Amino acid sequence: MDKVPPRTLSGFMELLPEKQALMEKMLETLRDTYSVCGFAPLDTPAVESAEVLLAKGGGETEKQIYRFSKGDTDLALRFDLTVPLAKYVAANYSRLTFPFRRYQIGKVWRGERAQRGRFREFYQADIDVIGDGKLDILNEAEIPAVIFRAFTAMGLSRFTIRINNRRILNGFFQLSGLTEKAGDIMRAVDKLDKIGSGSVRDILTGELMLDSDLADRVMQFIGFRGTTAETLDFLKGCAGRNQVFDQGLDELVAVAGLLPSLGVSEEHFAIDLTIARGLDYYTGTVYETVIDGHPEIGSICSGGRYDDLAEYYTDKKLPGAGISIGLTRLFYILDEQKLLNESVVTAPADVLVIPMTDNIAVPAATATILRNAGIRTQIYAENKKIKQKLSYADKLGIPFVVLIGEDELKAGVVTVKNMETGEQASKPVALAVNDIKAALNKKDALHIIKE
Amino acid sequence: MDKVPPRTLSGFMELLPEKQALMEKMLETLRDTYSVCGFAPLDTPAVESAEVLLAKGGGETEKQIYRFSKGDTDLALRFDLTVPLAKYVAANYSRLTFPFRRYQIGKVWRGERAQRGRFREFYQADIDVIGDGKLDILNEAEIPAVIFRAFTAMGLSRFTIRINNRRILNGFFQLSGLTEKAGDIMRAVDKLDKIGSGSVRDILTGELMLDSDLADRVMQFIGFRGTTAETLDFLKGCAGRNQVFDQGLDELVAVAGLLPSLGVSEEHFAIDLTIARGLDYYTGTVYETVIDGHPEIGSICSGGRYDDLAEYYTDKKLPGAGISIGLTRLFYILDEQKLLNESVVTAPADVLVIPMTDNIAVPAATATILRNAGIRTQIYAENKKIKQKLSYADKLGIPFVVLIGEDELKAGVVTVKNMETGEQASKPVALAVNDIKAALNKKDALHIIKE
Repeated sequence: MDKVPPRTLSGFMELLPEKQALMEKMLETLRDTYSVCGFAPLDTPAVESAEVLLAKGGGETEKQIYRFSKGDTDLALRFDLTVPLAKYVAANYSRLTFPFRRYQIGKVWRGERAQRGRFREFYQADIDVIGDGKLDILNEAEIPAVIFRAFTAMGLSRFTIRINNRRILNGFFQLSGLTEKAGDIMRAVDKLDKIGSGSVRDILTGELMLDSDLADRVMQFIGFRGTTAETLDFLKGCAGRNQVFDQGLDELVAVAGLLPSLGVSEEHFAIDLTIARGLDYYTGTVYETVIDGHPEIGSICSGGRYDDLAEYYTDKKLPGAGISIGLTRLFYILDEQKLLNESVVTAPADVLVIPMTDNIAVPAATATILRNAGIRTQIYAENKKIKQKLSYADKLGIPFVVLIGEDELKAGVVTVKNMETGEQASKPVALAVNDIKAALNKKDALHIIKE
Repeated sequence: MDKVPPRTLSGFMELLPEKQALMEKMLETLRDTYSVCGFAPLDTPAVESAEVLLAKGGGETEKQIYRFSKGDTDLALRFDLTVPLAKYVAANYSRLTFPFRRYQIGKVWRGERAQRGRFREFYQADIDVIGDGKLDILNEAEIPAVIFRAFTAMGLSRFTIRINNRRILNGFFQLSGLTEKAGDIMRAVDKLDKIGSGSVRDILTGELMLDSDLADRVMQFIGFRGTTAETLDFLKGCAGRNQVFDQGLDELVAVAGLLPSLGVSEEHFAIDLTIARGLDYYTGTVYETVIDGHPEIGSICSGGRYDDLAEYYTDKKLPGAGISIGLTRLFYILDEQKLLNESVVTAPADVLVIPMTDNIAVPAATATILRNAGIRTQIYAENKKIKQKLSYADKLGIPFVVLIGEDELKAGVVTVKNMETGEQASKPVALAVNDIKAALNKKDALHIIKE
């Protein structure tokens, strides 16, 4: 028979089992963190009506989207989790209780040009809080607090959540007589990390035709560097002259003030007046998250406060705050930077039960006891030599082997071999369960990221 | 602005938060069960090259598949998890350790005619063990044992895993001189539950042109009813005349003999000689799972032993055993049959912290303590009256409220209100954590299915 080459499309991540095990732990950590912070899981279809997905329209999105027909239905794969959320909240408005807090972890698709570290199918892991008409400022502090908790639970410690408020920027631009150019200036400022302050200033004086003094004033304002207290003092010095600015500052003071109560330590957040987020969508607090010492990676988690989630679907005013982790890219980066913890057990089992006689029933019953105790257990019943059986455990990194031969059957015990140390001892199965569980609990405490 | 109606496509399940919470628990139960039985998680792309997905070809699949182009690439959405597994194992053969045990829980897409209880996008939850050239019979017993464990963990108790062996049927047909018609007869037999034995016999004597005696013999053999021991005795009475039959019987004896050691109690499995599975793919043990008393639902979980997983991609002989749960359909059925347990907490949080003064910092810090203790916690900071705040907890079914007003702030305590009983008491936060955890542990023990 002619064979079809078994290939996977480029830009579509498909991991080998060891790496997949780490990815699963990352997904589990996110699910647990989002849950413990009181977000409800949501699952929406991967396929939606193209008309619904593209309600907002817009150039880049429309070009990248996977769109197709089935019968006479015009369909598309979702390209983010925000549009489906907007659709869901608008469609189920009367059945939801607000503020509606949801998390969604799922794949999205974008037909971008494939290149190293860019994916056409990738996981996003989003949280959003949606209000009905209004939404308290506390929510804008909670969002980064959840992200702090998530990254900490993964084992990441050298990261900074950068916070700004769009109103501060908008107010500043009003004060400087730059309101009409504010959007363009913010889009330029958003590139600061990528292209440097010189190039941003060039855009300001060139393309955007600011005079030199005004360009300097913009660069000096957004370039302010200091501790949270220093930055807030600097901003307070600019206050009292513009209502939008003052509201933004009040919000920033509130958010920065609440973060420690929400568990975020001072070294993990910073006010950064360069953060604008390109999207016009955001109206208040905005966030980006960087891995310290790796500016080349850019933001691994971004979001902010918006006033109108679902304006394309409903007249209801639905303000919200949310953030999104590009999980596939993050995993790719962590792997590339060798930040994944190699000590984490990635084996498909904690114990391999090896029958050494024709009696398979006792090993099967032993595996059942181990599984009932929550220990991940395989039985190796293939007809191989003992050396090959042990080699199977070794290759997969299974930490314990339970051997059951003539002697063990006679004495009603099992022999437990620690594959790491080589130690082995015979004991009743109940004792083996306890010993193995105790050893595994230590391993379970390992974080998936090791810096 | 013109609004686009926020609709979800028909045949695509999208649940409200309470139902989604139950679905998540079902997914979690499956992940936990599959893991504890030593299966590695696998994740393959939803989108594959159409050439790869359709390597096997075949009518129905090709008609139902979602197929589309992007640039000049011919793409398709996966329609099951078996073809991607075959591709994965063939592509990564030299990097995998065999037997390779994987589970995959993911969405698949089939553009079927939409009708009640039929989905175009649905979850499959698969386990497979793949051998390299050979695979021990134990694996054919383990697969249904995992399924027993999964359904039991969900709280389902009235179900039966029906087991048969294709070799017994093939051998019987050889003995009856019906080898050439075996495939057709098996496909007819496979419809027994749906159309009844009279209609199956009509197909045998009509379309398949068996004479009346032979048709009776077929119907008597496959229609044998008895306990496991009785059925095995009946089959042993037919043994010794055909090698294929005898091998199938040996395998069935081994599988039935191992199931109790693997934790499957006698009342949850039955040998059923009518089970053939339509696919030519299966070669040994085959399984179907039915909810007792609901023959109209059909099999909720099916699979079996196959000899050649990836013949369209590789010359390597890759025998395996596997089973698949159609999870979206199962969830739909459980919901429709009112078998979902209403006592399970489906709220997005276990505790709602309610600030009753302008002090938000202490409630935020209290929520942080609760979250650090693993208690799912929301803070309600919206500017509403206390009655409305309590009503929020009530609507969402959040079991506990923690109130923090002037008195609590002064005394350094919190007031915990049990929303079910109405009881409330003030106590230090550390004590509140313990009390709430103890109460929640009881609720966590609830199964998602209640019969």
